[in-house]
Amino acid sequence: MAIPALNPPLRTLMGPGPSDIHPRVLEAMAKPTIGHLDPYYLQLMDGMQQMLRQLFRTTNPMTMAISATGSAGMEATVVNLIEPGDSMVVCVNGVFGGRMVDVAERAGADVTKIERPWGEVFTVDDLVPALEKKPQVVGIVMAETSTGASQPLEEISRAVHDAGALLLVDAVTSLGGIPVEVDQWRIDAIYSGSQKCLSCPPGLAPVSFGPAAMEKVLSRKTKVQSWYLDVSMLANYWGTDRVYHHTAPINMSYGLYEALRMIHEEGMEACFARHLANHEMLKAGLSELGISYAAQEGHQLPMLNAVHIPEGVDDAKVRGELLNRFGIEIGGGLGAFKGKVWRIGLMGHAARETNVMLLLAALRKLL
Amino acid sequence: MAIPALNPPLRTLMGPGPSDIHPRVLEAMAKPTIGHLDPYYLQLMDGMQQMLRQLFRTTNPMTMAISATGSAGMEATVVNLIEPGDSMVVCVNGVFGGRMVDVAERAGADVTKIERPWGEVFTVDDLVPALEKKPQVVGIVMAETSTGASQPLEEISRAVHDAGALLLVDAVTSLGGIPVEVDQWRIDAIYSGSQKCLSCPPGLAPVSFGPAAMEKVLSRKTKVQSWYLDVSMLANYWGTDRVYHHTAPINMSYGLYEALRMIHEEGMEACFARHLANHEMLKAGLSELGISYAAQEGHQLPMLNAVHIPEGVDDAKVRGELLNRFGIEIGGGLGAFKGKVWRIGLMGHAARETNVMLLLAALRKLL
Repeated sequence: MAIPALNPPLRTLMGPGPSDIHPRVLEAMAKPTIGHLDPYYLQLMDGMQQMLRQLFRTTNPMTMAISATGSAGMEATVVNLIEPGDSMVVCVNGVFGGRMVDVAERAGADVTKIERPWGEVFTVDDLVPALEKKPQVVGIVMAETSTGASQPLEEISRAVHDAGALLLVDAVTSLGGIPVEVDQWRIDAIYSGSQKCLSCPPGLAPVSFGPAAMEKVLSRKTKVQSWYLDVSMLANYWGTDRVYHHTAPINMSYGLYEALRMIHEEGMEACFARHLANHEMLKAGLSELGISYAAQEGHQLPMLNAVHIPEGVDDAKVRGELLNRFGIEIGGGLGAFKGKVWRIGLMGHAARETNVMLLLAALRKLL
Repeated sequence: MAIPALNPPLRTLMGPGPSDIHPRVLEAMAKPTIGHLDPYYLQLMDGMQQMLRQLFRTTNPMTMAISATGSAGMEATVVNLIEPGDSMVVCVNGVFGGRMVDVAERAGADVTKIERPWGEVFTVDDLVPALEKKPQVVGIVMAETSTGASQPLEEISRAVHDAGALLLVDAVTSLGGIPVEVDQWRIDAIYSGSQKCLSCPPGLAPVSFGPAAMEKVLSRKTKVQSWYLDVSMLANYWGTDRVYHHTAPINMSYGLYEALRMIHEEGMEACFARHLANHEMLKAGLSELGISYAAQEGHQLPMLNAVHIPEGVDDAKVRGELLNRFGIEIGGGLGAFKGKVWRIGLMGHAARETNVMLLLAALRKLL
């Protein structure tokens, strides 16, 4: 049995994630492994929590990184807040809202799904009928990675809380690329992924649980269905008690620490501005090529540009040539958008002028 | 807010995991990230599966790495095999058997716990009364990391199958250090962790599901409670369909690939022999210091040496000095063994003569 040496190709990652990783973050991944109860590792956890709180704009003590990918972040927030029979409203306008319905039903939630067409966003009016039924939890995706739509949350949060529900938010693609105001917007539970605008390899899911969410967790009548994701147990490891729960992914944490440190150095405002500027440059360039956006005007994400594949263009062929000739990865469409849109990521370290220039030049050659 | 640079100390990792990591594996972690549907990554998945099948000694198609740590491997095997109301027997002679009870109950299993004193192992006779009740699944830990006891499985497997149950095995600490014969011993579902004898950083959980386990999964009446760990969905990504499920932890996979490749190069028999030889050397050296083993004679794991802390010795002080003066990490006791035993790991790259020599010399200075 011949096992070839590890030799991954060099890519420019402009898909829906993972995004380009800065060499500093890759180097961090290779630092010597230490124990998950080593005093230095405990310090590192504190530093990660500090930087994640800054990025989520929250003082929530229960802000940490789940030891799995972003999808496990979704599961972690849902299974902690939902007890069997609880009612949950889930807003669905793309793949990831749909996934949240599945996750919530598996947790025993009585789910009311409300829908908007793909590429559009929700207004308070869309939620009103469902909120009248007084659900316990409302789940919504802030940055729908399948459509590139940017969901405003402030008014919806007010309506959700007026109805007495908890607000659960998917910030997988938004965190680090656009403002996410957990405390100001009163988000009760939120999750993200390391591999999007944080520009760390995939493998960790930053989450934050607010006071009302933790109250719900601590007053549960049933145990959280997942031992691995039980936030009341994780709190004993991430909190001051430092009780062993599972063996933390040390080197992944090194990567996330360094990636967060780079955002901290750049400054959050500068980081958001960079994402926006590169999005505008890309949008102008694509417009010259006759390529338009799939998401509603005024609600387009800077970091995830879902665009219509031009008439007569072979989706697979162009993406294949981008990858094989130029080493550029962009994403294809998911679900209802399969074969109809491309998803161009400008996330984290990938959100830079040279990437935009390169992709536009490559598309000009291929189209 | 000052965030210090990442600068982890150099450690010799001789605790219960993570174990010492070879520089080749650390370098692999830092290779450029690529997409989770990149043709090269799909090849890499094939290579990982091939090497994991070799190590598990199985032809099971559903052999792969769960995108989370070893504890999630436990949860993955349990939640896929258990439907609410199913009966499960769990053998408990340490912390990890106890954890399996908790995980199984959260999955809705009707659990019968059978117990042996810590440090001892189970015989078929211990299981007979519980097997008479015809449980659906029997769970057992092969290498109890909290006690250092090595559980023989062949006869127990026969009894379990005679009773019509599926056998679920924890191989977190055993895989790569002692023979694990999935097909020959008819293990139906098994899980491990990347950070023990595989000598990769923590973050991935190798698992394997046999034909009877997959039949049970595919004939379930209810959905698996965890979307993230649902093996029928994971099969579509790890199998030939390559359907996107979640974003795989690319750089962790690089690490595991390289770690498995090193075992493949060394040869499994040589690798097992190395673990055993170093264990014997350590045991002889400890014996000279008057230190004895916590696990039953004849059932002591080579890679996890749980030993009684000598009378009058200050546990925390000695472990602290080992770490701070000599950079050596060993583990303290868990649960019933807290303050009573040390857990000395000789796992993977840590299972080498120089480590044994160093630890014995350090203990001689401190005791």
